[in-house]
Amino acid sequence: MINKNMELLGKQPSVIRDIHEYSVKRKSEIGENNVFDFSIGNPSIPTPAEVKDTILKLLSESDGIKLHAYTSDAGNHNTRVAIANDTNNRFRFKVSAENIYMTCGAAASLEISIRAICNVGDEVIVLSPYFPEYKVYIENAGAKAVEVLCRKNDFGIDIKAIENAVNSKTKAIIVNSPNNPSGVVFSEEDISSLAELLNSYSEEYSQPIYIIADEPYREIVYGGVNVPFIPCYYDNTIVCYSYSKSLSLPGERIGYILISPKATDSSDIFSAVCGAGRASGYICAPSLMQYVIEKCCGIMPDMAKYEKNRDLIYTSLKEIGYNVIRPDGAFYLFVEALEEDANKFCEKAKKFELLLVPSDSFGVKGFVRIAYCVSYDQIKNSIPAFKALFEEYKKGVTL
Amino acid sequence: MINKNMELLGKQPSVIRDIHEYSVKRKSEIGENNVFDFSIGNPSIPTPAEVKDTILKLLSESDGIKLHAYTSDAGNHNTRVAIANDTNNRFRFKVSAENIYMTCGAAASLEISIRAICNVGDEVIVLSPYFPEYKVYIENAGAKAVEVLCRKNDFGIDIKAIENAVNSKTKAIIVNSPNNPSGVVFSEEDISSLAELLNSYSEEYSQPIYIIADEPYREIVYGGVNVPFIPCYYDNTIVCYSYSKSLSLPGERIGYILISPKATDSSDIFSAVCGAGRASGYICAPSLMQYVIEKCCGIMPDMAKYEKNRDLIYTSLKEIGYNVIRPDGAFYLFVEALEEDANKFCEKAKKFELLLVPSDSFGVKGFVRIAYCVSYDQIKNSIPAFKALFEEYKKGVTL
Repeated sequence: MINKNMELLGKQPSVIRDIHEYSVKRKSEIGENNVFDFSIGNPSIPTPAEVKDTILKLLSESDGIKLHAYTSDAGNHNTRVAIANDTNNRFRFKVSAENIYMTCGAAASLEISIRAICNVGDEVIVLSPYFPEYKVYIENAGAKAVEVLCRKNDFGIDIKAIENAVNSKTKAIIVNSPNNPSGVVFSEEDISSLAELLNSYSEEYSQPIYIIADEPYREIVYGGVNVPFIPCYYDNTIVCYSYSKSLSLPGERIGYILISPKATDSSDIFSAVCGAGRASGYICAPSLMQYVIEKCCGIMPDMAKYEKNRDLIYTSLKEIGYNVIRPDGAFYLFVEALEEDANKFCEKAKKFELLLVPSDSFGVKGFVRIAYCVSYDQIKNSIPAFKALFEEYKKGVTL
Repeated sequence: MINKNMELLGKQPSVIRDIHEYSVKRKSEIGENNVFDFSIGNPSIPTPAEVKDTILKLLSESDGIKLHAYTSDAGNHNTRVAIANDTNNRFRFKVSAENIYMTCGAAASLEISIRAICNVGDEVIVLSPYFPEYKVYIENAGAKAVEVLCRKNDFGIDIKAIENAVNSKTKAIIVNSPNNPSGVVFSEEDISSLAELLNSYSEEYSQPIYIIADEPYREIVYGGVNVPFIPCYYDNTIVCYSYSKSLSLPGERIGYILISPKATDSSDIFSAVCGAGRASGYICAPSLMQYVIEKCCGIMPDMAKYEKNRDLIYTSLKEIGYNVIRPDGAFYLFVEALEEDANKFCEKAKKFELLLVPSDSFGVKGFVRIAYCVSYDQIKNSIPAFKALFEEYKKGVTL
């Protein structure tokens, strides 16, 4: 009677939510410090002081009417100018406020962008492993998600596999780098090859294939690794960004869509983005946060804590003998499970109080995701558990 | 190639936006105080001091991580408890946190609720005059908007007309009281009769017809007028609320959906609401504002300013000779145009620097909406212009 698809979507069990609930229960049983919960990707470095200072300044200067008023649908003009300037300074690219549409975070950016460009029956390529909500947004637009596996050895982009998946229905490919859940940053070589491939197919089919660049982790990289800014490599690019991770503001729902001015019919896409936002009930992005971003969009996160965490967990698990994918960005480590079924592996890890996320919901089998945006002590204290888990499997094999 | 429906929706001209642009231009030509812009429904009473104080307190107590973290999809539990308690105290009704889903404002509340209950081919009744975005959300859900005119004399609910419109495809009716654009508060008698009618048809068709109660103006009423709380009169009710108007926070996008616990399959509807929110890219409502609402949801707006405005404009226009619908709530006055075509009337009003919104986009012909959430002085200074406009028409008729 009511919409059964929506009801089912609302009732769909979430692996991460289930682990979180188990975590809360288990912590109450054996103490918070004895459970090693690596399931949730919530930023753990404090929101930069500039954010708080900016909010205080804004509050002191306004009676609230202007500060909390509707902005225009696409967002406050000065915020969009500030983001355009910041983009141009950092990436040697040329966008203006007119190419930027403020959103309620990355999920909204993705949902709106996909609806703006897709028609019923279109196909959108997603690179496995991928963020599971992509599929929800693609299907919501009446399109079909086509999964293409990344390279098995290093989880880079498998150009050959994409070539096999592209056809005349292909409307877009979602590229998420640094990647959730693998932590991999796609190389300049991979991005260039992808651009070349898509240009050639766009020409062959006489219609653009868009790259939707999902970039909430863009600033979260280690050791000076370069994250190629995709609009510099491919014209038909739509960037979906969020300040959730870089400014530790996930709950505030603030981000943007950047439509490359070089995209075919760029301004029509911008209109379609406005239309899709309107259809989904978005009026404007939260106003106070828009004014915060106007002042804070150039602030880089203090990565020292995440990098220290990464170094410890990556080195330790490798030393123990795990097959670990080297993460150059985000705050995730992708580790091969010690048996074929990652779900069963995660169940065994629970006996050692290790809470890991099996890779199945990310479209890949046989791996686990470790979110290391936790305290350094949690990682340090968890190493013996990882070791014991490994020994357990070794025993099983040799026995 | 891209989605043409979305592109068209994004390019659709907006009457109110056009007037706003004209207003900005005209003010720069003849001075801000010489243009009487009554086009925009932006709250003009300052955000209550408690909101600012709460933000300051929250900022001083947190390093930002918890304050700005994701809440659960349905919203922070304590916020939902506070809203449930406030609802139960004020309306002698019994809801709990489990019946409340936090949203990014009224537009999101409506879009999500409509998608949660509607299937392709369903019909949703809207009462003209109505907020134009209703149609966007209804069509977005694959359903059809069926317009039913309110009573011509007082813009109350025309039960007979609704009876003629209901059929086996009718899934819901949207009831917006106090009403935008008419300012009318639907009486207890109207709501009771509507409930009786819908109960009888729900029984006849063996399926519930829902009331979607769009209530952002619920607290904005004058002279102690009672706004019937619809869940007390009709079980299958979904309330869509926003703090935009009552706390002067329109840009912050914070509101909720309340699903009556007495609705048929209430918890399934709740799941469908969660699913529809997810499909539209909503992760959670902005977190800082959720914590603000936890503390401030019981605060009543200071209506004195709006009421003073209403009294002045209502009395003055009536005295001049306009046919004015008595507004008991919201901050809108609905006035009959002095010629059949409200658009032409608004064009003539422009000559007197009066910027009014023609009723056509609200689904009714021959009226104009006056948003009196402006300064008292603007209203006072505009009266001679309204008088001159009236005289102009009188001359035309008598000549």
